[in-house]
Amino acid sequence: MPHYDLCCIGSGPAGQRAAIQAAKLGKRVCVVERTEVVGGVAINTGTIPSKALREAILHLTGFAHRAVFGESYGLKREFTLEDLTFWCQHVIKAENEVVRSALLRNGVEIIRGTGEFGDPHTVLVIHGTEYTHITADHILISTGTRPARPENIPFDNTHIVDADGILRLNKLPRTLLVVGGGVIGTEYASMMQALGVKVTLIEGRQRLMDFLDPEVGEALQYHLRQAGMTLRLGEEVTRVEVIDAPPGARSADGKLVEATLASGKTIRGDCLLYAVGRQGCTDELALSKAGLSADARGRIKVNNYFQTQQPSIYAAGDVIGFPALASTSMEQGRLAACHMFGLKFEHVPELLPYGIYSIPEISMVGWTESQLTEKDVPYEAGIANYREIARGQLLGDIMGMLKLLVHQDARTILGVHCIGTGATELVHIGQAVIALKGTVDYFVNTVFNYPTLAECYKVAALNAVNKLAHV
Amino acid sequence: MPHYDLCCIGSGPAGQRAAIQAAKLGKRVCVVERTEVVGGVAINTGTIPSKALREAILHLTGFAHRAVFGESYGLKREFTLEDLTFWCQHVIKAENEVVRSALLRNGVEIIRGTGEFGDPHTVLVIHGTEYTHITADHILISTGTRPARPENIPFDNTHIVDADGILRLNKLPRTLLVVGGGVIGTEYASMMQALGVKVTLIEGRQRLMDFLDPEVGEALQYHLRQAGMTLRLGEEVTRVEVIDAPPGARSADGKLVEATLASGKTIRGDCLLYAVGRQGCTDELALSKAGLSADARGRIKVNNYFQTQQPSIYAAGDVIGFPALASTSMEQGRLAACHMFGLKFEHVPELLPYGIYSIPEISMVGWTESQLTEKDVPYEAGIANYREIARGQLLGDIMGMLKLLVHQDARTILGVHCIGTGATELVHIGQAVIALKGTVDYFVNTVFNYPTLAECYKVAALNAVNKLAHV
Repeated sequence: MPHYDLCCIGSGPAGQRAAIQAAKLGKRVCVVERTEVVGGVAINTGTIPSKALREAILHLTGFAHRAVFGESYGLKREFTLEDLTFWCQHVIKAENEVVRSALLRNGVEIIRGTGEFGDPHTVLVIHGTEYTHITADHILISTGTRPARPENIPFDNTHIVDADGILRLNKLPRTLLVVGGGVIGTEYASMMQALGVKVTLIEGRQRLMDFLDPEVGEALQYHLRQAGMTLRLGEEVTRVEVIDAPPGARSADGKLVEATLASGKTIRGDCLLYAVGRQGCTDELALSKAGLSADARGRIKVNNYFQTQQPSIYAAGDVIGFPALASTSMEQGRLAACHMFGLKFEHVPELLPYGIYSIPEISMVGWTESQLTEKDVPYEAGIANYREIARGQLLGDIMGMLKLLVHQDARTILGVHCIGTGATELVHIGQAVIALKGTVDYFVNTVFNYPTLAECYKVAALNAVNKLAHV
Repeated sequence: MPHYDLCCIGSGPAGQRAAIQAAKLGKRVCVVERTEVVGGVAINTGTIPSKALREAILHLTGFAHRAVFGESYGLKREFTLEDLTFWCQHVIKAENEVVRSALLRNGVEIIRGTGEFGDPHTVLVIHGTEYTHITADHILISTGTRPARPENIPFDNTHIVDADGILRLNKLPRTLLVVGGGVIGTEYASMMQALGVKVTLIEGRQRLMDFLDPEVGEALQYHLRQAGMTLRLGEEVTRVEVIDAPPGARSADGKLVEATLASGKTIRGDCLLYAVGRQGCTDELALSKAGLSADARGRIKVNNYFQTQQPSIYAAGDVIGFPALASTSMEQGRLAACHMFGLKFEHVPELLPYGIYSIPEISMVGWTESQLTEKDVPYEAGIANYREIARGQLLGDIMGMLKLLVHQDARTILGVHCIGTGATELVHIGQAVIALKGTVDYFVNTVFNYPTLAECYKVAALNAVNKLAHV
């Protein structure tokens, strides 16, 4: 029975990074992976495929340049989802290979099979009819999540799909209902809208992704509506069913999906994407044998060091809940490994960036205006609109915006909030300045390449400084 | 006769920024502008139009996605240069308006006409038959440059053009000779090549843009050659003439241009772009009346504070020579204004970024490997290839590369060199870390959005750290 210093169950971002970090510390590490390929949902069904789809949409529809080339611009061909995603298989393969080779290069063993606990230090790996027992000083649960599929939603993979199923639709619906305005629901809703699908997005709260800075969230909602999307906020879906299309209704196969809202409205469409929450993949882990349990959504509770109630068992990544982004999952995995082997680390959650790959793209780092107001931190906001920046004009992105939040006294940067082209890249300039304790004056005095979107930092900084002068 | 604290001759990036900086200090400022519109060549004939062309090429030819969609992908239509640049008129107009309103908002007067010195404190502004005398405590020469047009090159705006003329060609040549492998020559050569024009680029030195880091310069040359361009390095053009196309040669109008090299070769093409050097626009300034003179290329010598030999007369921007980038010109203008009015400033030339909008794009900040080696600074280099990064795969940019130069002992960042998609934006993350004295460990410990090109910093940092461990 092989013994390891660390056994990671699941090879997604959290498992990979924990394994590599431990291996770099000279530890004997294995990763147990249920599927044929490493990488988890980030690579295989989630992040990468959806970003590949997004890239294709932006390019093939000429969306990014519509403002400059005119609304009618575009390739004007019939799209199928297959057209838009076929090429991402090659990206997935390349990424699988990157992860696999990183693991192997660092001496991490990859064990194929489904892991379940035998006891707090034993993992039973089941692969077909084979059983292997593994013992380990430390075990990391990095099994991720899958779309939640509540019993009252009659998923059929044709008219009613989850986030995994939407990419497998064999034709583009004319109208789409999206239930759930979180990251995944909003990303797909905005992509489908950009493709010309008529989208209705239904969210139980009053705002989409309410962790966003309110001004950015408002801008997002405004732009989605301007693009033609119907938002139904503060609405709950009580029933979903596939019905026969009434006479005269447009339907390719004589069927429609109908959602009934608690407010009494009914909404119909060709297809419904159910994207409310995800379920932690913990039901096959036999957690009780390790003295652990998951909550109703399959999530595992951890402390600040990513330890479960069993100090030798850690959990990281989507399986522990919010924010469930690939980037943060990687970091959690790495920090868990550091903690188990006594490596000192600093965890600065306010430096974690959030990247939302909706159309328009959104990213943030640091505090939001509402958080700062709640904490009584005096701040000033500086704004730069892409349309004021030569590069914004060149890209035809006239709705993009970058906001800097600046401490009124210390002049330090408290937050960066960006919506528009390249937001997920751009935010990292501000992140560095926050981390290295630079002030707004850094941006005032910096020379930026011309023309770049990075110039937004200078414009926003000058705006903030002008306002600070009046304090 | 109106009197000003500062009179800027020329409203390009240097003049604008100097004027606005001075106005913000409460000074009375005017800008003398020869043409109908403000902004100088950066907006009107140089930077913006060429970047607009580049954006259109990247988009319309599907260049950026060729790797993922296959070589044959593309809109496959006949391009004219007009198709590719018509929309930039709107960008130019928007930018003109941004500059004009920034000047006016700050109370800067814009005076239409050609300025010439009357004496060291007097500028005579000539507009048609009107003459105005202006006196000023300080005068900034920010007149910029125009393409050099040596007498032995028979420019005809059809077969033999300069950088201003190439955008006015009314049809795309089949073959193009570019003389001069500096920033402008290389940018246009690479754009035309991307459009499918067969390009030969002739440069007198052994390398294109030899201020680049050698590895980046090498990568650029490799990729240009891979794209089908012929590079003739270390070659001098001794004669250029338009000839009758010999029988059987392809030519739209029966003419070809022929360049003869010092090495004896002759090269023929449909069109020749002459892009060797630019001439400072100083010949109409009556410099001698201010006790000044320009060198043979019309450039004006200044000290570290951008002062000419006449302490009250400053010069900034392209008219003082290298690097002649819009971004650095802006900064020079601002610093000149700070110096003339006694505002303390720090000028850190090693934090100035360089952005080259060739295809592929290039950017750098800090020192190059060759500079560090010459100065005996012990460094290690960390490399990230875009193809190792999910976002690089998604963009289909498999040739991009980012290099970090790290001090072997202090672990500070000494330089960032990048070639590939988004290089000009990306470099600003590294610039912030250099400026704020962060180390390579900042990148190792930072969480980046996934998938972004910014992740290159982490990969390159890990690569550098691994190498440092072996020192």
